Amino acid sequence: MRPAILTLTTDFGSEGLYVAAVKGVVLGLAYHTQLVDVTHAISPQNILEGAFILSGLIDVFPKGTVHLAVVDPGVGTDRRLIVASVADHWFVLPDNGLLSAVARDRPPTGIWEITNPAFRRVPVSATFHGRDILAPAAAHLLLGGEPSELGPVRTKFVTLRNFQAVENATGFVGEVILRDSFGNLITNIEAKRLGDLPPEDWTIEVAGARIEGIGRTYADESAGTLVALPGSTGWLEISIVNGDAGRHLTAGPGTTVWISKKQASK
Amino acid sequence: MRPAILTLTTDFGSEGLYVAAVKGVVLGLAYHTQLVDVTHAISPQNILEGAFILSGLIDVFPKGTVHLAVVDPGVGTDRRLIVASVADHWFVLPDNGLLSAVARDRPPTGIWEITNPAFRRVPVSATFHGRDILAPAAAHLLLGGEPSELGPVRTKFVTLRNFQAVENATGFVGEVILRDSFGNLITNIEAKRLGDLPPEDWTIEVAGARIEGIGRTYADESAGTLVALPGSTGWLEISIVNGDAGRHLTAGPGTTVWISKKQASK
Amino acid sequence: MRPAILTLTTDFGSEGLYVAAVKGVVLGLAYHTQLVDVTHAISPQNILEGAFILSGLIDVFPKGTVHLAVVDPGVGTDRRLIVASVADHWFVLPDNGLLSAVARDRPPTGIWEITNPAFRRVPVSATFHGRDILAPAAAHLLLGGEPSELGPVRTKFVTLRNFQAVENATGFVGEVILRDSFGNLITNIEAKRLGDLPPEDWTIEVAGARIEGIGRTYADESAGTLVALPGSTGWLEISIVNGDAGRHLTAGPGTTVWISKKQASK
Repeated sequence: MRPAILTLTTDFGSEGLYVAAVKGVVLGLAYHTQLVDVTHAISPQNILEGAFILSGLIDVFPKGTVHLAVVDPGVGTDRRLIVASVADHWFVLPDNGLLSAVARDRPPTGIWEITNPAFRRVPVSATFHGRDILAPAAAHLLLGGEPSELGPVRTKFVTLRNFQAVENATGFVGEVILRDSFGNLITNIEAKRLGDLPPEDWTIEVAGARIEGIGRTYADESAGTLVALPGSTGWLEISIVNGDAGRHLTAGPGTTVWISKKQASK
Repeated sequence: MRPAILTLTTDFGSEGLYVAAVKGVVLGLAYHTQLVDVTHAISPQNILEGAFILSGLIDVFPKGTVHLAVVDPGVGTDRRLIVASVADHWFVLPDNGLLSAVARDRPPTGIWEITNPAFRRVPVSATFHGRDILAPAAAHLLLGGEPSELGPVRTKFVTLRNFQAVENATGFVGEVILRDSFGNLITNIEAKRLGDLPPEDWTIEVAGARIEGIGRTYADESAGTLVALPGSTGWLEISIVNGDAGRHLTAGPGTTVWISKKQASK
Repeated sequence: MRPAILTLTTDFGSEGLYVAAVKGVVLGLAYHTQLVDVTHAISPQNILEGAFILSGLIDVFPKGTVHLAVVDPGVGTDRRLIVASVADHWFVLPDNGLLSAVARDRPPTGIWEITNPAFRRVPVSATFHGRDILAPAAAHLLLGGEPSELGPVRTKFVTLRNFQAVENATGFVGEVILRDSFGNLITNIEAKRLGDLPPEDWTIEVAGARIEGIGRTYADESAGTLVALPGSTGWLEISIVNGDAGRHLTAGPGTTVWISKKQASK
């Protein structure tokens, strides 16, 4: 019995049969799987949100983990379904941009299109490829199967530009990618891109508010204070200590964020 | 170690102790169980919704799976608790109609009332039979025990009429059973009952709206279009491409749905 | 392979990466773990709610279970992270009151502060000790490790007063601790403290409403009736049969509850 972990990231919600259907198919083929729900609360068909969530999985799961993601507005069109190998993890998903953030600084070492009808539930539904094509493909990998048995090698995949904040003369212009359940606003600006400038020398502007300096932890400031912090997944976050920054700023995915070096005062 | 899968379908919500209590009791008795949450978001005490969800499990889980369901407005009354064997799956649930959709075209091959006090937590709570009676009964089956040890054979079970759309001269009159998390309206009209008539020759009427023809997939129509499709679980669904049909039509469980053959024009 | 169960109780919500991150770290260290989500819907930073939930776990999970809890408004301050052994269960959590209800009538048999850097993810984030310190500590226990390897013994822990209803001349004055997903109001008055007085001889007052007598089960009363019942976890609950008591009474955590012996009428 070899370890086999499958994570699931979808926009299926928790009310219906969809998630259980995927799990049932996987367990019928690969019983000894550790199933881990990442989230099923991706906003419906929001590829950007799904891509962001996936970008945090490689750092916390062991090598060999299979990550199944279904945010699939194109189901029924000719968008591809693929397996990608990234940093010794497997990603099984529609090729619609979901891999954008994962692959940003870790290019896939292999991509295969899932085409082999031998690894499909029959008949394949026109509306639920997560259950009928992606789940059996994930089970194949969980059982130690070769990705090349699933279909031909591909060299390209769809990427979204949103995960690359733009650098300008005084800093970066980015955007909010996700508003989490605490109301924290997670941006597409990676903390590590800010370099060696002292944290207090940055100014952040978002939704009409201005934050002086990048903090280290919520506890350094009093309740109600608007702060910018390097988040636990490496992206700069805008938060209110013990509060809801998204609600306070009426901000969310797409809200522009400027981060600039302070001008030396004359 | 034999494979043992337990699915859970309840109206417990995800905020409290209820789901974990059921799992704790099961794991204390049958540690090597694959636990799968189907949903705990059944509307409180909505047996119809629970029955619909259960109807989709047999097709996706392997034989031998145990399905525990608790939607139990009658807890504390003399409603029975039963085990039913259907298509080599086990259902452990209150006998209040929850089995209606599962058993619609697959009659149970055995029904046992759960009465044996040896398979109960002591003391049995007056309000939480899911934890105190159903969980130990499910664990007994997961360990390979005989259902007959749980109590006497029964031949009848409660059925609800809602899962049988009425056929009339020009088609069927049915109703919406469930509004899923995408706002899709799932009806009690099975796609397979529509026979060989070309899909484009049906007209669907629901909540004042009229849909010409049955589609195949969301992707065939442009965003915002109201469509009727055979859903991934075999029931006819009313959807809006990239939208929320339930909100748009102000429709949900109980809304009447007519599907009629088009009249030949003169 | 020894049985190993980990329960998770947090205020992380189900939308983000936080829960999966904790699970990924645990599975990377202790693959053969049965993971059970208790709830991730604790109101943000509400220690009281978390403490209540934890108090119900010992009775339903087998001995040896590890319970990880993260409701941690003090992350980044010098609050301690501890392991506590209570009734042969392990609790891994911030020392901020979360253990208050568990330890109310079952004093811990051992408390250790988690300080050993060998059991941490490196680098430790300033904002996510659940992933970086508590998850590895839990994995250590799941693998059968000694708690003393995690850090030094402590003899004190933080307790909140809220789990002790006050006794007075005619009964008890307590408060609502939790409003569950059905709208039931769970109080801090333990049913067992009410002694041998016949249930019908108590009067309950809450949010301007008055309930005569303690019931046994929802089914004894007609729909819409406000009732007080001993709940399935041993605490007195205020409910409306087939309704939402919290909404009806505009009551929730903190609402005062009086329970008094009826005066003999003259």
